[in-house]
Amino acid sequence: MKAYAEMTKEELASEYEQLKKVYKKYQGMELNLNMARGKPCKEQLDISMEMMDALNSEADLTCEDGTDCRNYGVLDGIQECKELMGAMMENDPDNIIIFGNSSLNVMFDTVSRAYSHGIMGNTPWCKLDKVKFLCPVPGYDRHFGITEYFGFEMIPVPMTPEGPDMDVVEKYVNNDPAVKGIWCVPKYSNPQGYSCSDETVRRFARLTPAANDFRIFWDNAYGVHHLYDERQDYLIEILQECKRAGHPDMVYKFASTSKITFPGSGISAIATSLNNMKDIKSTMTHQTIGHDKVNQLRHVRFFKNMEGIRQHMRKHAAIIRPKFEAIEEIFDTELSGLGIGSWTKPNGGYFISFDGLENTAKEIVAYAKKAGVTLTDAGATWPYHKDPHDNNIRIAPTYPTLDDIKIAAKLFTVCVKLVSAKKILEEKTSDVVVEKEDNKEKKAN
Amino acid sequence: MKAYAEMTKEELASEYEQLKKVYKKYQGMELNLNMARGKPCKEQLDISMEMMDALNSEADLTCEDGTDCRNYGVLDGIQECKELMGAMMENDPDNIIIFGNSSLNVMFDTVSRAYSHGIMGNTPWCKLDKVKFLCPVPGYDRHFGITEYFGFEMIPVPMTPEGPDMDVVEKYVNNDPAVKGIWCVPKYSNPQGYSCSDETVRRFARLTPAANDFRIFWDNAYGVHHLYDERQDYLIEILQECKRAGHPDMVYKFASTSKITFPGSGISAIATSLNNMKDIKSTMTHQTIGHDKVNQLRHVRFFKNMEGIRQHMRKHAAIIRPKFEAIEEIFDTELSGLGIGSWTKPNGGYFISFDGLENTAKEIVAYAKKAGVTLTDAGATWPYHKDPHDNNIRIAPTYPTLDDIKIAAKLFTVCVKLVSAKKILEEKTSDVVVEKEDNKEKKAN
Repeated sequence: MKAYAEMTKEELASEYEQLKKVYKKYQGMELNLNMARGKPCKEQLDISMEMMDALNSEADLTCEDGTDCRNYGVLDGIQECKELMGAMMENDPDNIIIFGNSSLNVMFDTVSRAYSHGIMGNTPWCKLDKVKFLCPVPGYDRHFGITEYFGFEMIPVPMTPEGPDMDVVEKYVNNDPAVKGIWCVPKYSNPQGYSCSDETVRRFARLTPAANDFRIFWDNAYGVHHLYDERQDYLIEILQECKRAGHPDMVYKFASTSKITFPGSGISAIATSLNNMKDIKSTMTHQTIGHDKVNQLRHVRFFKNMEGIRQHMRKHAAIIRPKFEAIEEIFDTELSGLGIGSWTKPNGGYFISFDGLENTAKEIVAYAKKAGVTLTDAGATWPYHKDPHDNNIRIAPTYPTLDDIKIAAKLFTVCVKLVSAKKILEEKTSDVVVEKEDNKEKKAN
Repeated sequence: MKAYAEMTKEELASEYEQLKKVYKKYQGMELNLNMARGKPCKEQLDISMEMMDALNSEADLTCEDGTDCRNYGVLDGIQECKELMGAMMENDPDNIIIFGNSSLNVMFDTVSRAYSHGIMGNTPWCKLDKVKFLCPVPGYDRHFGITEYFGFEMIPVPMTPEGPDMDVVEKYVNNDPAVKGIWCVPKYSNPQGYSCSDETVRRFARLTPAANDFRIFWDNAYGVHHLYDERQDYLIEILQECKRAGHPDMVYKFASTSKITFPGSGISAIATSLNNMKDIKSTMTHQTIGHDKVNQLRHVRFFKNMEGIRQHMRKHAAIIRPKFEAIEEIFDTELSGLGIGSWTKPNGGYFISFDGLENTAKEIVAYAKKAGVTLTDAGATWPYHKDPHDNNIRIAPTYPTLDDIKIAAKLFTVCVKLVSAKKILEEKTSDVVVEKEDNKEKKAN
């Protein structure tokens, strides 16, 4: 098919009329599908059910070092869980602290601690006039939610297929002492599925921050979440690289089992330098008696080791890969060559990112919604929920069934075409005519 | 036996010599006992092992309302867990938020939130010159640890057998807008085991704080932790009473299952007004994806209802009551009438509080330590770890075996007598003589 922009007004008008009919057909189907949240589907949860048998009333809930997991004690996690998470995170167990269910909670607390008490003896951020955070865009709305909640100024940094644009990152971090942090999902990023190249990681590690207490918030949420055996992204380990570059304390690395076992009952962890750990623990000792050790032990007994996690992740991939591929195939078939959008084809993670024409994202999401398919709100991938181009949409393929995903993806392409055709038509037509058209439409509805 | 103060110098000197021999005998026993932490013993943990079978791989991990506990969702706890905790806390499930393992963590976060963002629209405490907290003494060191960590001025309030001295509380709270909170363990207090009388609760509810954002931190840690069936303390429900008194938002009430099931793997909760809940949730939505729902469901399936909890607590009581009684009996036998100390005889909770002569607590604890019995540090029950009278010692009977508790309690009384006799002797003798005596002792050692 011809690109929309190259069609004559008549060709495009005819296409538009045709699309309206197709859209109406979808509306008649009374769909109720959700592609908004990066949520595992039921089948994915089922593959972890055996974990529920890892510990029972006959089990010895004692660690290798004799710790009774049932009782008080052990602020920073049981040793065997540090080893398991260390293997997964590619870090020394001595650099790991284990936390409770939500790694978002760990990130929030890390920011909150810096806000109320400062990092390693530096001025608490609550005492500063201005704190700025760099936010790669499109990015993860929950990250931006934390920094917005604490009133930090959020500076968008463009994402590239190699990770955040490091020219921009260096410019801000190395010159502005108010820049205290950067969010980063380094592998299979949310929403694009991009991974930081070797050069990007090396440039991260070699930042020379104007602020002593600048930290990289390295949210490696999808570190082992590959879709393919034969096509996997690889990341230079950031703690090691920062150490090598002479900035051992510059990074907090986060991970969790949320999308490995149960999002509703997992464990999370931070990997960081010994100095940062000491700093964190000096708060933790006041903050908590300790996180759930029985669940830590449950995960260890279930997975046994890193190979156990790897095998488990292959089962996840087998379930969700067809969903990603179905979307990619439908997008290819329906949208290729039309010049109205592009999308990512990640090797892992939980999302596909779609970029449409300028000022179409909100309308596409609204059209999908009216036909029963919920997408992530347009704008959610930007700080303050404001996408200045209004063109990015995050697509989450994992939760619905494969059949539903196919329907939803197809409808999505219809919405994209409909809104894009309308927009280009508007540009090709005078304002008056479009108004009439709109009025006619309203009557028809 | 005669009171030490009424003995002649010679009688007391002879008693002192005798005590030194007994103490030496204990030192020879190479004991290694711990009466420091309010920690359940192994037998107490064992009675909850059946909970490990409440959910297995065959179980349906779905809530009554259809929520899949394994997946994301439900910020504030599953409905059936709110109902269970509500029954235990004597509050409407609608006033309950469920959290993770440590209720200390919930208290910390509550203070931290007030510090960074303020309570219900009031000025964040980090923006104020001065924040003061009332601290009933003796009290719980972890409470004082939180308020010290945030740099608040801690004002000791004397405890009475009816709860905190409400004359003092009213004076501060009703007049000083810098007073933002009070810690309170209302039932079976830590360490005395005192419970607030009806009048105390009513006066709490009728405080007229100078500060809008004054809150009572009502840590009902031992709400169902009775030692006896026939002798149980009763508490007027504080949320209801505050509502009745026209101050519905004045209290945060905390509880957990830490000393009910597993301290290392429990659930905690807050009960508070709908206004406070809205305020708390407005933070939580940025802070976490949600707490462990599977563990919430596990607790619900195990206990079923409040009657299940009641029966379970009777099992705890059967294990620890003999330990409390052994200590009380040994104290009665060994210390009664000597005029060198008094102790509490609580109907529940986890502690016995001992008050010795002025300026003896540190030394008693040191003597016990040198003979192999670890006690809670003297001073720990006061803000900044400074007991101005140096006379309060917290005794935790639950963790050691009954046999060990008897030995430890006996040794404790020896240390009390030894240190008290020495002290009174010193008072009866001139400074010079005491110095010589001390020197002789040093040589002897």
